[in-house]
Amino acid sequence: VETLWLVNGERSGVDPADRGLAYGDGLFETMRAERGTVKRFDLHYERLREGCERLAIPTPNRALIEGEIAAHLPAQSRAIVKLIVTRGAGTRGYRPPPHPQPTRILAISPWVDYPAKHYAQGVRVRTCELRLGENPHLAGIKHLCRLEQVLAQLELRDGEVEQGLLLDASGRVIGGTSSNIFIVRGGNLETPAITRCGIRGVMRRAVIAAAAELALRVTETDLALRDVESANEVFVTNALFGIWPVAQLGERRLDVGPVTRRLMRHLEVGGDG
Amino acid sequence: VETLWLVNGERSGVDPADRGLAYGDGLFETMRAERGTVKRFDLHYERLREGCERLAIPTPNRALIEGEIAAHLPAQSRAIVKLIVTRGAGTRGYRPPPHPQPTRILAISPWVDYPAKHYAQGVRVRTCELRLGENPHLAGIKHLCRLEQVLAQLELRDGEVEQGLLLDASGRVIGGTSSNIFIVRGGNLETPAITRCGIRGVMRRAVIAAAAELALRVTETDLALRDVESANEVFVTNALFGIWPVAQLGERRLDVGPVTRRLMRHLEVGGDG
Repeated sequence: VETLWLVNGERSGVDPADRGLAYGDGLFETMRAERGTVKRFDLHYERLREGCERLAIPTPNRALIEGEIAAHLPAQSRAIVKLIVTRGAGTRGYRPPPHPQPTRILAISPWVDYPAKHYAQGVRVRTCELRLGENPHLAGIKHLCRLEQVLAQLELRDGEVEQGLLLDASGRVIGGTSSNIFIVRGGNLETPAITRCGIRGVMRRAVIAAAAELALRVTETDLALRDVESANEVFVTNALFGIWPVAQLGERRLDVGPVTRRLMRHLEVGGDG
Repeated sequence: VETLWLVNGERSGVDPADRGLAYGDGLFETMRAERGTVKRFDLHYERLREGCERLAIPTPNRALIEGEIAAHLPAQSRAIVKLIVTRGAGTRGYRPPPHPQPTRILAISPWVDYPAKHYAQGVRVRTCELRLGENPHLAGIKHLCRLEQVLAQLELRDGEVEQGLLLDASGRVIGGTSSNIFIVRGGNLETPAITRCGIRGVMRRAVIAAAAELALRVTETDLALRDVESANEVFVTNALFGIWPVAQLGERRLDVGPVTRRLMRHLEVGGDG
Protein backbone atom coordinates (compact mmCIF):
# COMPACT_ATOMS: atom_id res chain seq x y z
CA VAL A 1 0.00 0.00 0.00
CA GLU A 2 1.48 3.31 -1.01
CA THR A 3 0.62 6.91 -0.33
CA LEU A 4 -2.39 8.31 -2.19
CA TRP A 5 -1.78 11.87 -3.40
CA LEU A 6 -4.54 14.22 -4.50
CA VAL A 7 -3.76 17.69 -5.85
CA ASN A 8 -6.95 19.76 -5.78
CA GLY A 9 -8.84 16.46 -5.82
CA GLU A 10 -6.95 15.03 -8.82
CA ARG A 11 -4.25 12.37 -9.01
CA SER A 12 -1.82 14.70 -10.71
CA GLY A 13 1.49 16.46 -10.27
CA VAL A 14 1.90 19.92 -8.77
CA ASP A 15 2.19 23.00 -10.97
CA PRO A 16 5.92 23.89 -11.00
CA ALA A 17 4.84 27.54 -10.62
CA ASP A 18 3.19 26.81 -7.26
CA ARG A 19 4.31 29.25 -4.58
CA GLY A 20 4.43 26.47 -2.01
CA LEU A 21 7.43 25.11 -3.91
CA ALA A 22 8.88 28.47 -4.95
CA TYR A 23 8.84 30.14 -1.52
CA GLY A 24 7.46 27.76 1.09
CA ASP A 25 4.36 29.95 0.81
CA GLY A 26 1.84 27.70 2.50
CA LEU A 27 0.94 25.52 5.47
CA PHE A 28 0.51 21.88 6.35
CA GLU A 29 -1.13 19.57 8.85
CA THR A 30 -0.12 16.00 9.63
CA MET A 31 -2.97 14.06 11.20
CA ARG A 32 -3.61 10.65 12.68
CA ALA A 33 -6.64 8.77 11.47
CA GLU A 34 -8.29 5.77 13.13
CA ARG A 35 -11.31 3.80 11.94
CA GLY A 36 -12.16 6.30 9.22
CA THR A 37 -11.88 9.38 11.45
CA VAL A 38 -9.18 12.01 11.80
CA LYS A 39 -8.26 12.50 15.46
CA ARG A 40 -8.64 16.07 16.71
CA PHE A 41 -9.61 17.36 13.27
CA ASP A 42 -11.15 20.42 14.98
CA LEU A 43 -7.75 21.44 16.37
CA HIS A 44 -5.93 20.75 13.09
CA TYR A 45 -8.44 22.77 11.08
CA GLU A 46 -8.33 25.57 13.66
CA ARG A 47 -4.53 25.83 13.37
CA LEU A 48 -4.73 25.71 9.57
CA ARG A 49 -7.31 28.49 9.62
CA GLU A 50 -5.13 30.61 11.92
CA GLY A 51 -2.15 30.02 9.62
CA CYS A 52 -4.13 30.99 6.53
CA GLU A 53 -5.29 34.18 8.24
CA ARG A 54 -1.77 35.09 9.35
CA LEU A 55 -0.43 34.52 5.80
CA ALA A 56 -3.47 36.07 4.05
CA ILE A 57 -4.25 32.83 2.19
CA PRO A 58 -7.97 32.08 1.75
CA THR A 59 -8.84 29.20 4.11
CA PRO A 60 -10.01 26.11 2.24
CA ASN A 61 -13.57 25.10 2.96
CA ARG A 62 -13.81 22.72 5.89
CA ALA A 63 -16.52 20.50 4.41
CA LEU A 64 -14.50 20.15 1.20
CA ILE A 65 -11.45 18.94 3.11
CA GLU A 66 -13.45 16.64 5.37
CA GLY A 67 -15.28 15.16 2.40
CA GLU A 68 -12.09 14.54 0.47
CA ILE A 69 -10.44 12.85 3.44
CA ALA A 70 -13.54 10.76 4.22
CA ALA A 71 -13.78 9.56 0.61
CA HIS A 72 -10.28 8.07 0.71
CA LEU A 73 -9.62 7.09 4.31
CA PRO A 74 -9.47 3.36 5.03
CA ALA A 75 -12.48 2.38 7.16
CA GLN A 76 -10.70 0.08 9.60
CA SER A 77 -6.97 0.60 9.71
CA ARG A 78 -5.02 3.56 11.00
CA ALA A 79 -3.61 6.06 8.51
CA ILE A 80 -1.52 9.23 8.31
CA VAL A 81 -3.28 12.14 6.62
CA LYS A 82 -1.19 15.06 5.44
CA LEU A 83 -2.76 18.20 4.06
CA ILE A 84 -0.74 20.95 2.38
CA VAL A 85 -2.37 24.27 1.53
CA THR A 86 -0.38 26.75 -0.56
CA ARG A 87 -1.08 30.21 -1.95
CA GLY A 88 -1.28 28.50 -5.35
CA ALA A 89 0.45 29.35 -8.60
CA GLY A 90 1.82 32.80 -9.04
CA THR A 91 3.77 35.00 -11.35
CA ARG A 92 7.48 35.49 -10.68
CA GLY A 93 8.52 37.36 -7.53
CA TYR A 94 7.75 37.29 -3.82
CA ARG A 95 4.71 39.55 -4.18
CA PRO A 96 1.58 37.45 -3.67
CA PRO A 97 -1.12 37.62 -6.35
CA PRO A 98 -4.00 39.89 -5.27
CA HIS A 99 -6.55 37.08 -5.59
CA PRO A 100 -4.75 33.82 -4.80
CA GLN A 101 -6.26 30.47 -5.80
CA PRO A 102 -4.91 28.16 -3.07
CA THR A 103 -3.65 24.69 -3.91
CA ARG A 104 -4.84 21.80 -1.71
CA ILE A 105 -2.68 18.71 -1.57
CA LEU A 106 -3.83 15.65 0.34
CA ALA A 107 -1.73 12.59 1.08
CA ILE A 108 -3.09 9.48 2.78
CA SER A 109 -0.38 7.05 3.88
CA PRO A 110 -0.44 3.70 5.65
CA TRP A 111 0.17 3.88 9.37
CA VAL A 112 3.59 2.87 10.68
CA ASP A 113 3.65 1.71 14.32
CA TYR A 114 6.08 3.35 16.71
CA PRO A 115 8.13 1.06 18.97
CA ALA A 116 6.20 0.17 22.16
CA LYS A 117 9.29 0.89 24.28
CA HIS A 118 9.14 4.57 23.31
CA TYR A 119 5.93 4.75 25.35
CA ALA A 120 6.85 2.31 28.11
CA GLN A 121 10.46 3.31 28.76
CA GLY A 122 10.76 6.67 27.03
CA VAL A 123 12.93 8.14 24.30
CA ARG A 124 16.41 9.62 24.02
CA VAL A 125 16.91 13.34 23.36
CA ARG A 126 20.00 15.43 22.74
CA THR A 127 20.39 19.14 22.11
CA CYS A 128 20.98 20.20 18.50
CA GLU A 129 23.69 22.69 17.57
CA LEU A 130 21.31 24.49 15.23
CA ARG A 131 19.36 27.35 16.83
CA LEU A 132 15.96 28.40 15.53
CA GLY A 133 15.70 31.91 14.09
CA GLU A 134 13.14 34.07 15.89
CA ASN A 135 10.27 35.65 14.01
CA PRO A 136 7.00 36.27 15.87
CA HIS A 137 5.19 36.65 12.51
CA LEU A 138 5.86 32.98 11.74
CA ALA A 139 5.79 31.49 15.25
CA GLY A 140 3.12 28.95 16.14
CA ILE A 141 1.73 28.19 12.69
CA LYS A 142 2.77 25.12 10.70
CA HIS A 143 4.11 26.84 7.58
CA LEU A 144 6.11 25.11 4.85
CA CYS A 145 9.50 26.78 5.55
CA ARG A 146 11.08 23.94 7.50
CA LEU A 147 14.75 23.93 6.50
CA GLU A 148 15.74 24.48 10.12
CA GLN A 149 14.05 21.22 11.10
CA VAL A 150 15.68 19.47 8.12
CA LEU A 151 19.14 20.71 9.15
CA ALA A 152 18.46 19.68 12.75
CA GLN A 153 17.58 16.18 11.52
CA LEU A 154 20.85 16.08 9.56
CA GLU A 155 22.62 16.50 12.91
CA LEU A 156 20.85 13.39 14.19
CA ARG A 157 21.86 11.09 11.35
CA ASP A 158 23.67 8.73 13.71
CA GLY A 159 20.22 7.57 14.89
CA GLU A 160 21.23 7.63 18.56
CA VAL A 161 18.25 9.74 19.70
CA GLU A 162 14.57 9.79 18.80
CA GLN A 163 14.23 13.59 19.05
CA GLY A 164 16.65 16.51 18.92
CA LEU A 165 16.08 19.35 21.39
CA LEU A 166 15.85 22.73 19.65
CA LEU A 167 16.75 26.04 21.26
CA ASP A 168 16.06 29.46 19.77
CA ALA A 169 18.77 31.99 18.85
CA SER A 170 18.54 33.42 22.40
CA GLY A 171 19.04 29.98 23.99
CA ARG A 172 15.48 29.30 25.11
CA VAL A 173 14.15 25.76 24.74
CA ILE A 174 11.48 25.55 22.02
CA GLY A 175 10.78 21.84 21.53
CA GLY A 176 11.85 18.64 19.84
CA THR A 177 12.74 18.36 16.15
CA SER A 178 9.19 17.21 15.42
CA SER A 179 7.49 17.67 18.77
CA ASN A 180 6.58 20.03 21.57
CA ILE A 181 8.08 19.56 25.02
CA PHE A 182 6.65 19.63 28.54
CA ILE A 183 8.45 19.48 31.85
CA VAL A 184 7.09 18.68 35.31
CA ARG A 185 8.43 20.65 38.31
CA GLY A 186 6.87 20.53 41.76
CA GLY A 187 3.91 18.65 40.29
CA ASN A 188 3.16 21.43 37.79
CA LEU A 189 3.55 21.37 34.00
CA GLU A 190 5.53 23.94 32.05
CA THR A 191 5.92 24.23 28.28
CA PRO A 192 7.63 26.79 26.01
CA ALA A 193 5.35 29.69 25.06
CA ILE A 194 5.96 29.39 21.24
CA THR A 195 5.75 33.11 20.58
CA ARG A 196 9.04 33.69 18.72
CA CYS A 197 9.53 30.39 16.85
CA GLY A 198 8.36 26.79 16.89
CA ILE A 199 4.97 25.26 16.16
CA ARG A 200 1.99 25.17 18.51
CA GLY A 201 1.23 21.48 18.18
CA VAL A 202 -2.23 19.96 18.22
CA MET A 203 -1.11 17.40 20.81
CA ARG A 204 0.39 20.24 22.88
CA ARG A 205 -3.04 21.81 22.94
CA ALA A 206 -4.66 18.47 23.80
CA VAL A 207 -2.23 18.01 26.72
CA ILE A 208 -2.98 21.50 28.04
CA ALA A 209 -6.71 20.73 27.90
CA ALA A 210 -6.20 17.32 29.54
CA ALA A 211 -4.14 18.88 32.31
CA ALA A 212 -7.04 21.21 33.13
CA GLU A 213 -9.36 18.21 33.33
CA LEU A 214 -6.92 16.52 35.74
CA ALA A 215 -6.55 19.71 37.83
CA LEU A 216 -2.87 19.99 36.87
CA ARG A 217 -1.45 23.46 36.52
CA VAL A 218 0.23 24.28 33.14
CA THR A 219 2.34 27.37 32.50
CA GLU A 220 3.32 28.49 28.97
CA THR A 221 6.59 30.27 29.58
CA ASP A 222 10.26 30.73 28.67
CA LEU A 223 12.33 27.67 29.58
CA ALA A 224 16.12 27.49 29.73
CA LEU A 225 18.03 24.30 29.01
CA ARG A 226 18.85 23.98 32.73
CA ASP A 227 15.10 24.04 33.52
CA VAL A 228 14.60 21.01 31.30
CA GLU A 229 17.77 19.31 32.56
CA SER A 230 16.71 19.68 36.18
CA ALA A 231 13.02 18.80 35.76
CA ASN A 232 11.36 15.90 37.59
CA GLU A 233 9.73 14.64 34.40
CA VAL A 234 10.07 15.54 30.71
CA PHE A 235 7.91 14.42 27.81
CA VAL A 236 7.46 15.30 24.13
CA THR A 237 4.25 15.38 22.11
CA ASN A 238 3.06 15.28 18.54
CA ALA A 239 -0.17 14.49 16.73
CA LEU A 240 1.06 11.16 15.36
CA PHE A 241 2.85 9.50 18.27
CA GLY A 242 0.92 11.31 21.00
CA ILE A 243 3.16 11.46 24.10
CA TRP A 244 6.64 10.01 24.60
CA PRO A 245 8.30 10.23 28.02
CA VAL A 246 11.92 11.41 27.81
CA ALA A 247 14.22 8.77 29.35
CA GLN A 248 17.53 10.29 28.42
CA LEU A 249 18.46 13.93 28.01
CA GLY A 250 22.09 14.33 27.03
CA GLU A 251 23.94 12.47 29.81
CA ARG A 252 21.03 12.44 32.25
CA ARG A 253 18.70 9.46 32.74
CA LEU A 254 15.08 10.11 33.74
CA ASP A 255 12.34 7.80 34.95
CA VAL A 256 8.90 7.84 33.40
CA GLY A 257 7.09 9.91 36.00
CA PRO A 258 3.59 9.78 37.49
CA VAL A 259 2.31 12.99 35.90
CA THR A 260 3.41 11.82 32.44
CA ARG A 261 1.71 8.45 33.03
CA ARG A 262 -1.52 10.11 34.19
CA LEU A 263 -1.64 12.26 31.05
CA MET A 264 -0.89 9.28 28.80
CA ARG A 265 -3.70 7.28 30.39
CA HIS A 266 -6.12 10.19 30.25
CA LEU A 267 -5.38 10.79 26.56
CA GLU A 268 -5.29 7.05 25.79
CA VAL A 269 -1.74 7.24 24.48
CA GLY A 270 0.32 4.09 24.62
CA GLY A 271 2.41 1.53 22.84
CA ASP A 272 -0.63 0.05 21.14
CA GLY A 273 -1.46 3.38 19.65
CA VAL B 1 4.82 33.90 -24.93
CA GLU B 2 4.51 32.07 -21.65
CA THR B 3 6.95 30.54 -19.22
CA LEU B 4 8.50 27.23 -20.26
CA TRP B 5 8.77 24.81 -17.32
CA LEU B 6 10.97 21.74 -17.33
CA VAL B 7 11.00 19.32 -14.40
CA ASN B 8 14.11 17.12 -14.67
CA GLY B 9 14.07 17.93 -18.37
CA GLU B 10 10.42 17.03 -18.90
CA ARG B 11 7.37 19.22 -19.41
CA SER B 12 5.57 17.72 -16.45
CA GLY B 13 4.23 18.52 -13.01
CA VAL B 14 6.20 18.22 -9.80
CA ASP B 15 5.90 15.12 -7.61
CA PRO B 16 3.63 16.13 -4.68
CA ALA B 17 6.06 14.25 -2.41
CA ASP B 18 8.93 16.59 -3.38
CA ARG B 19 10.69 17.96 -0.30
CA GLY B 20 11.04 21.36 -1.96
CA LEU B 21 7.28 21.69 -1.58
CA ALA B 22 6.97 19.84 1.73
CA TYR B 23 9.71 21.71 3.63
CA GLY B 24 11.29 24.37 1.40
CA ASP B 25 14.14 21.87 1.24
CA GLY B 26 16.03 23.28 -1.73
CA LEU B 27 17.56 26.30 -3.44
CA PHE B 28 16.95 28.56 -6.39
CA GLU B 29 18.66 30.98 -8.72
CA THR B 30 17.01 33.70 -10.78
CA MET B 31 19.17 34.73 -13.72
CA ARG B 32 19.15 37.28 -16.50
CA ALA B 33 19.82 36.03 -20.01
CA GLU B 34 20.75 38.11 -23.04
CA ARG B 35 21.39 36.93 -26.59
CA GLY B 36 21.34 33.28 -25.62
CA THR B 37 23.70 33.65 -22.64
CA VAL B 38 23.05 33.74 -18.90
CA LYS B 39 24.79 36.73 -17.32
CA ARG B 40 27.22 35.84 -14.53
CA PHE B 41 26.35 32.16 -14.71
CA ASP B 42 29.64 31.42 -12.92
CA LEU B 43 28.50 33.35 -9.87
CA HIS B 44 25.01 31.83 -9.91
CA TYR B 45 26.37 28.30 -10.17
CA GLU B 46 28.94 29.02 -7.46
CA ARG B 47 26.21 30.17 -5.03
CA LEU B 48 24.03 27.18 -5.94
CA ARG B 49 26.99 24.86 -5.29
CA GLU B 50 27.66 26.50 -1.92
CA GLY B 51 23.98 26.17 -1.00
CA CYS B 52 23.91 22.50 -1.98
CA GLU B 53 26.99 21.84 0.14
CA ARG B 54 25.54 23.67 3.14
CA LEU B 55 22.27 21.71 2.86
CA ALA B 56 23.96 18.39 1.96
CA ILE B 57 22.12 18.18 -1.37
CA PRO B 58 24.18 16.71 -4.26
CA THR B 59 25.04 19.60 -6.60
CA PRO B 60 23.53 19.14 -10.06
CA ASN B 61 26.06 18.79 -12.84
CA ARG B 62 27.01 22.14 -14.33
CA ALA B 63 27.15 20.97 -17.94
CA LEU B 64 23.69 19.41 -17.59
CA ILE B 65 22.21 22.71 -16.38
CA GLU B 66 24.04 24.80 -18.97
CA GLY B 67 22.98 22.45 -21.76
CA GLU B 68 19.36 22.48 -20.70
CA ILE B 69 19.29 26.27 -20.50
CA ALA B 70 21.10 26.66 -23.85
CA ALA B 71 18.64 24.32 -25.57
CA HIS B 72 15.66 26.48 -24.64
CA LEU B 73 16.94 30.05 -24.37
CA PRO B 74 15.79 32.47 -27.07
CA ALA B 75 18.80 33.40 -29.23
CA GLN B 76 18.10 37.13 -29.56
CA SER B 77 15.76 38.43 -26.90
CA ARG B 78 16.32 38.78 -23.19
CA ALA B 79 14.83 36.21 -20.84
CA ILE B 80 14.51 35.35 -17.16
CA VAL B 81 15.90 31.95 -16.23
CA LYS B 82 14.89 30.45 -12.92
CA LEU B 83 16.41 27.23 -11.63
CA ILE B 84 15.07 25.39 -8.57
CA VAL B 85 17.03 22.48 -7.10
CA THR B 86 15.37 20.46 -4.34
CA ARG B 87 16.41 17.43 -2.31
CA GLY B 88 13.87 15.49 -4.36
CA ALA B 89 11.05 13.24 -3.25
CA GLY B 90 11.19 11.78 0.21
CA THR B 91 9.30 9.70 2.65
CA ARG B 92 7.33 11.44 5.38
CA GLY B 93 9.18 13.43 8.03
CA TYR B 94 11.91 16.07 8.17
CA ARG B 95 14.72 13.50 8.09
CA PRO B 96 16.39 13.65 4.66
CA PRO B 97 16.75 10.42 2.71
CA PRO B 98 20.31 9.02 2.97
CA HIS B 99 20.79 9.12 -0.82
CA PRO B 100 18.71 12.01 -2.16
CA GLN B 101 17.86 12.24 -5.86
CA PRO B 102 17.62 16.01 -6.38
CA THR B 103 14.87 17.53 -8.49
CA ARG B 104 15.85 20.15 -11.08
CA ILE B 105 13.21 22.61 -12.18
CA LEU B 106 13.94 25.12 -14.92
CA ALA B 107 11.70 28.00 -15.94
CA ILE B 108 12.42 30.28 -18.88
CA SER B 109 10.22 33.38 -18.97
CA PRO B 110 9.97 36.35 -21.32
CA TRP B 111 11.84 39.43 -20.16
CA VAL B 112 9.84 42.28 -18.67
CA ASP B 113 11.49 45.72 -18.89
CA TYR B 114 11.87 47.75 -15.72
CA PRO B 115 10.89 51.45 -15.89
CA ALA B 116 13.79 53.61 -17.17
CA LYS B 117 13.16 56.13 -14.39
CA HIS B 118 14.15 53.56 -11.76
CA TYR B 119 17.69 53.81 -13.16
CA ALA B 120 17.72 57.51 -14.03
CA GLN B 121 15.95 58.95 -10.99
CA GLY B 122 16.07 56.10 -8.49
CA VAL B 123 13.50 54.11 -6.53
CA ARG B 124 11.48 54.56 -3.36
CA VAL B 125 12.20 52.45 -0.27
CA ARG B 126 10.50 52.20 3.10
CA THR B 127 11.32 50.08 6.13
CA CYS B 128 9.18 46.98 6.66
CA GLU B 129 7.71 46.12 10.06
CA LEU B 130 8.71 42.49 9.64
CA ARG B 131 12.15 41.61 11.00
CA LEU B 132 14.17 38.74 9.57
CA GLY B 133 14.88 35.83 11.91
CA GLU B 134 18.60 35.19 12.39
CA ASN B 135 20.12 31.82 11.57
CA PRO B 136 23.76 31.69 10.46
CA HIS B 137 23.17 28.17 9.06
CA LEU B 138 20.79 29.58 6.46
CA ALA B 139 22.35 33.02 5.87
CA GLY B 140 23.74 33.88 2.45
CA ILE B 141 22.35 30.98 0.41
CA LYS B 142 19.23 31.30 -1.72
CA HIS B 143 17.11 28.58 -0.15
CA LEU B 144 13.41 28.05 -0.79
CA CYS B 145 12.12 29.14 2.66
CA ARG B 146 11.03 32.65 1.73
CA LEU B 147 7.88 33.32 3.72
CA GLU B 148 9.55 36.29 5.39
CA GLN B 149 10.02 37.95 2.01
CA VAL B 150 6.43 37.11 1.07
CA LEU B 151 5.10 38.68 4.28
CA ALA B 152 7.32 41.73 3.72
CA GLN B 153 5.82 42.09 0.24
CA LEU B 154 2.33 41.89 1.75
CA GLU B 155 3.24 45.02 3.74
CA LEU B 156 4.00 46.83 0.48
CA ARG B 157 0.71 46.09 -1.24
CA ASP B 158 -0.08 49.79 -1.58
CA GLY B 159 2.58 49.91 -4.33
CA GLU B 160 4.08 53.16 -3.02
CA VAL B 161 7.67 51.86 -2.94
CA GLU B 162 9.74 49.65 -5.25
CA GLN B 163 11.63 47.92 -2.43
CA GLY B 164 11.01 47.37 1.27
CA LEU B 165 13.99 47.72 3.60
CA LEU B 166 14.45 44.65 5.78
CA LEU B 167 16.09 44.67 9.22
CA ASP B 168 17.04 41.60 11.22
CA ALA B 169 15.61 40.73 14.63
CA SER B 170 18.44 42.74 16.26
CA GLY B 171 17.68 45.84 14.16
CA ARG B 172 20.57 45.63 11.68
CA VAL B 173 19.87 46.52 8.06
CA ILE B 174 20.04 43.42 5.83
CA GLY B 175 18.78 44.52 2.42
CA GLY B 176 15.75 45.17 0.24
CA THR B 177 12.82 42.77 -0.10
CA SER B 178 14.42 41.33 -3.26
CA SER B 179 17.80 43.07 -3.31
CA ASN B 180 21.04 43.77 -1.49
CA ILE B 181 21.84 47.29 -0.36
CA PHE B 182 24.97 49.45 -0.52
CA ILE B 183 25.61 52.84 1.03
CA VAL B 184 28.30 55.39 0.21
CA ARG B 185 29.92 57.31 3.08
CA GLY B 186 33.02 59.47 2.68
CA GLY B 187 33.49 58.04 -0.81
CA ASN B 188 33.62 54.45 0.47
CA LEU B 189 31.08 51.68 -0.04
CA GLU B 190 29.53 49.70 2.82
CA THR B 191 27.14 46.77 2.59
CA PRO B 192 25.59 44.43 5.21
CA ALA B 193 27.77 41.40 5.96
CA ILE B 194 24.95 38.80 5.41
CA THR B 195 26.19 36.40 8.10
CA ARG B 196 23.00 35.97 10.16
CA CYS B 197 20.23 36.28 7.54
CA GLY B 198 19.67 37.57 4.02
CA ILE B 199 20.99 36.38 0.67
CA ARG B 200 24.44 37.10 -0.75
CA GLY B 201 23.33 38.32 -4.16
CA VAL B 202 25.17 37.69 -7.40
CA MET B 203 24.91 41.39 -8.29
CA ARG B 204 26.21 42.25 -4.80
CA ARG B 205 29.29 40.19 -5.58
CA ALA B 206 29.61 41.82 -9.01
CA VAL B 207 29.45 45.29 -7.40
CA ILE B 208 32.14 44.36 -4.87
CA ALA B 209 34.37 43.16 -7.73
CA ALA B 210 33.63 46.27 -9.80
CA ALA B 211 34.45 48.51 -6.85
CA ALA B 212 37.88 46.90 -6.60
CA GLU B 213 38.45 47.58 -10.29
CA LEU B 214 37.49 51.22 -9.74
CA ALA B 215 39.77 51.49 -6.64
CA LEU B 216 36.72 52.05 -4.41
CA ARG B 217 36.89 50.66 -0.90
CA VAL B 218 34.05 48.28 0.12
CA THR B 219 33.39 47.14 3.68
CA GLU B 220 31.06 44.23 4.52
CA THR B 221 29.83 45.16 7.97
CA ASP B 222 26.90 45.65 10.34
CA LEU B 223 24.77 48.65 9.34
CA ALA B 224 22.16 50.35 11.49
CA LEU B 225 19.12 52.08 9.99
CA ARG B 226 20.63 55.46 10.90
CA ASP B 227 23.75 54.56 8.86
CA VAL B 228 21.58 54.09 5.78
CA GLU B 229 19.44 57.15 6.56
CA SER B 230 22.49 59.40 6.87
CA ALA B 231 24.47 58.00 3.91
CA ASN B 232 25.57 60.18 0.97
CA GLU B 233 24.32 57.64 -1.55
CA VAL B 234 22.24 54.46 -1.30
CA PHE B 235 21.58 51.86 -3.99
CA VAL B 236 20.06 48.39 -4.22
CA THR B 237 21.14 45.51 -6.43
CA ASN B 238 19.80 42.27 -7.85
CA ALA B 239 20.67 39.97 -10.72
CA LEU B 240 17.68 40.98 -12.84
CA PHE B 241 17.51 44.76 -12.55
CA GLY B 242 21.20 45.28 -11.79
CA ILE B 243 21.53 48.52 -9.79
CA TRP B 244 18.83 50.98 -8.77
CA PRO B 245 19.77 54.19 -6.99
CA VAL B 246 17.58 54.89 -3.95
CA ALA B 247 15.86 58.26 -4.38
CA GLN B 248 13.57 58.12 -1.38
CA LEU B 249 14.13 56.42 1.96
CA GLY B 250 11.16 56.92 4.26
CA GLU B 251 10.78 60.71 4.40
CA ARG B 252 14.26 61.47 3.09
CA ARG B 253 14.99 62.38 -0.56
CA LEU B 254 18.38 61.40 -2.01
CA ASP B 255 20.10 62.38 -5.24
CA VAL B 256 21.61 59.79 -7.55
CA GLY B 257 25.24 60.13 -6.52
CA PRO B 258 28.51 60.00 -8.44
CA VAL B 259 29.74 56.68 -6.98
CA THR B 260 26.44 54.98 -7.86
CA ARG B 261 26.64 56.38 -11.40
CA ARG B 262 30.24 55.20 -11.82
CA LEU B 263 29.34 51.68 -10.77
CA MET B 264 26.29 51.64 -13.05
CA ARG B 265 28.42 52.75 -16.01
CA HIS B 266 31.17 50.27 -15.20
CA LEU B 267 28.71 47.39 -14.94
CA GLU B 268 26.70 48.63 -17.97
CA VAL B 269 23.52 48.90 -15.93
CA GLY B 270 20.91 51.33 -17.13
CA GLY B 271 17.37 51.97 -18.23
CA ASP B 272 17.91 50.20 -21.54
CA GLY B 273 19.42 47.21 -19.86
